Amino acid sequence: METISFARGVPAPECLPVEELAECARAAVKRDASVLSYGEASGYRPLREWIAARHGVTPPEVLVTNGGLQGFGFLAWHLCRPGARVLVERPTYDRPLRVLEQIGAEVEALPMDDEGLEPDALAEALARGPKPAFLYTIPTFQNPSGRTLSTERRRGIIDLAHEHDLLVLEDDPYSLVRFEGAAPPSLFELDESGRVIYASSFSKTVAPGARVGYFVLPATLLAELQSTIASTYISPALLGQATVFEFLRRDLFEPNLARVCDLLHARRDAMLDALEDELRSADATWNRPEGGYFLWLELPGLDTRDLLAAGTREGVVFVPGADFGGPASSARLAYSFVSPAEIVLGVERLGAVVSAPAPV
Amino acid sequence: METISFARGVPAPECLPVEELAECARAAVKRDASVLSYGEASGYRPLREWIAARHGVTPPEVLVTNGGLQGFGFLAWHLCRPGARVLVERPTYDRPLRVLEQIGAEVEALPMDDEGLEPDALAEALARGPKPAFLYTIPTFQNPSGRTLSTERRRGIIDLAHEHDLLVLEDDPYSLVRFEGAAPPSLFELDESGRVIYASSFSKTVAPGARVGYFVLPATLLAELQSTIASTYISPALLGQATVFEFLRRDLFEPNLARVCDLLHARRDAMLDALEDELRSADATWNRPEGGYFLWLELPGLDTRDLLAAGTREGVVFVPGADFGGPASSARLAYSFVSPAEIVLGVERLGAVVSAPAPV
Repeated sequence: METISFARGVPAPECLPVEELAECARAAVKRDASVLSYGEASGYRPLREWIAARHGVTPPEVLVTNGGLQGFGFLAWHLCRPGARVLVERPTYDRPLRVLEQIGAEVEALPMDDEGLEPDALAEALARGPKPAFLYTIPTFQNPSGRTLSTERRRGIIDLAHEHDLLVLEDDPYSLVRFEGAAPPSLFELDESGRVIYASSFSKTVAPGARVGYFVLPATLLAELQSTIASTYISPALLGQATVFEFLRRDLFEPNLARVCDLLHARRDAMLDALEDELRSADATWNRPEGGYFLWLELPGLDTRDLLAAGTREGVVFVPGADFGGPASSARLAYSFVSPAEIVLGVERLGAVVSAPAPV
Repeated sequence: METISFARGVPAPECLPVEELAECARAAVKRDASVLSYGEASGYRPLREWIAARHGVTPPEVLVTNGGLQGFGFLAWHLCRPGARVLVERPTYDRPLRVLEQIGAEVEALPMDDEGLEPDALAEALARGPKPAFLYTIPTFQNPSGRTLSTERRRGIIDLAHEHDLLVLEDDPYSLVRFEGAAPPSLFELDESGRVIYASSFSKTVAPGARVGYFVLPATLLAELQSTIASTYISPALLGQATVFEFLRRDLFEPNLARVCDLLHARRDAMLDALEDELRSADATWNRPEGGYFLWLELPGLDTRDLLAAGTREGVVFVPGADFGGPASSARLAYSFVSPAEIVLGVERLGAVVSAPAPV
């Protein structure tokens, strides 16, 4: 029995534009052989120019890193001393928490509901304790919950950031992978005071293996990071960055994104339908994300770690919500990696396990 | 006037196999589309297998990173607490010193002469003070000095490592770029006790922009590093690693290396001849490296930082030895980046500056 993975928050192989990227990699090297030598610590200049134009900033405000996580590390090590207070959402993406743990930061997790981070909780946190180094938030199609912060709350958070001189790190790798509904403005777009650092990536829109994450941040801050970046890897892996740039140059980005959205849309729908069929009677609840990779399942009265053990035996896996700081009854279901048919089968298995947990 | 750079320790553009790498990048993606997704934190498996076979170890003993410096960082952060004692050579490559500084390590620089690190100085250092976290050494065609540790001294250092249970990090990116003479055994080859971590890279043999460095280390140590690596960048940039692997698969490595050695040989000879013509009368001395990128110039009685200021005005630059912890009278001359004709012209300019320093 093949295990069906709702655990892997990665694109299905058919989401990856393999032929196009193979050609782009070749063309990128032939076009600009400088990518085979050392380059700027901040990343491949033509790609930084493209990103700057897209976000209405200048290239000295753009940092491109070997995936977004490494850039998070550069920022976090720069902004935090041991004991620094950092605000995050509960639940949240677990890898940044590992980085903050290494630094020795004091992480404070703020509650969310279906509309995302609760501004009242943020206001309350800002009213007491030392000034946080920053707030880390994933406002759109959050990993792990799939939730999206409402526009009204976005405005509220920006107001609080102004009021308390709070630096906000907006991690936004999923927002372009939207298959229905209207996109709210990003926090970065709503902010007019330079208090929002915007992070995104080509992992979900082109390919994660390209390892191309980016940050839009004040030029002074990027200048401060330069020596740390150079001491970490001299210059980033330019081949992936130049390959992505070639993909953009050839106008392959938008059509590929449309294709990826269609593929993910069908997967999300398959999962929603299957959940309705298999878990509606089990007192379960889940959300309906308009994009991204994940949805959030709540199974009141169950511990999803036990459920995972049973599911593993039955050929379906997921990540218990507790791994992201969520309640014991929650689970992250990724619909990005498996096919619609596998999703149906996987949710059937999940339903069987929920309704009749196997003896441990 | 075009400035001639003896400062850049990078390959000349003609050393880079551009067409071949462009084709290899394309073929690597087409052959194995998994490089477009996340992969193992330790690096691209087929490349790790190739490296393991080359060094007579198993893949779980091989780590491939986004350039060697990043791997140095992983190791140094893992092996050192703030205040840890780390032994290095004087002079030495400056970037690892920046990493050790960030960690807050106590760096102790041991003297070298033309035959490399002095074992007596190492013995003396080991006889006193707390046990060092490790010794960092570049025994072959050292950056910055171009010096190579003699075989006898290598044996002496391995004996000391055994006697004092000293961990040795052998950084060896240049040894294959040898254009004359016989290669001494690596410290890793001489060691039989697992006390030598061997580091190398494809930066000098294929292309630095591939950002492919590697480490041969105990499997237990690599296992301990896994979570730090995954928390830093999930997986490394596999596209460059797979491109290098394709280059190896196609048997392009050895012919390319022979070509690179020929190009560098001609450059080194041009520099040695020009130094003989232009600086012999100036009381200067220099070494005759049998490979690598650099030679080490000593100009007794002069401060090479002043000389650099004058040289910059005259169109020739280099790195003062003091930047690597060397004496004020020393300089690192890289012959890797410029053509033989430029080398002749650059050394002429250098000679003019040495014999008649311009008024500041």
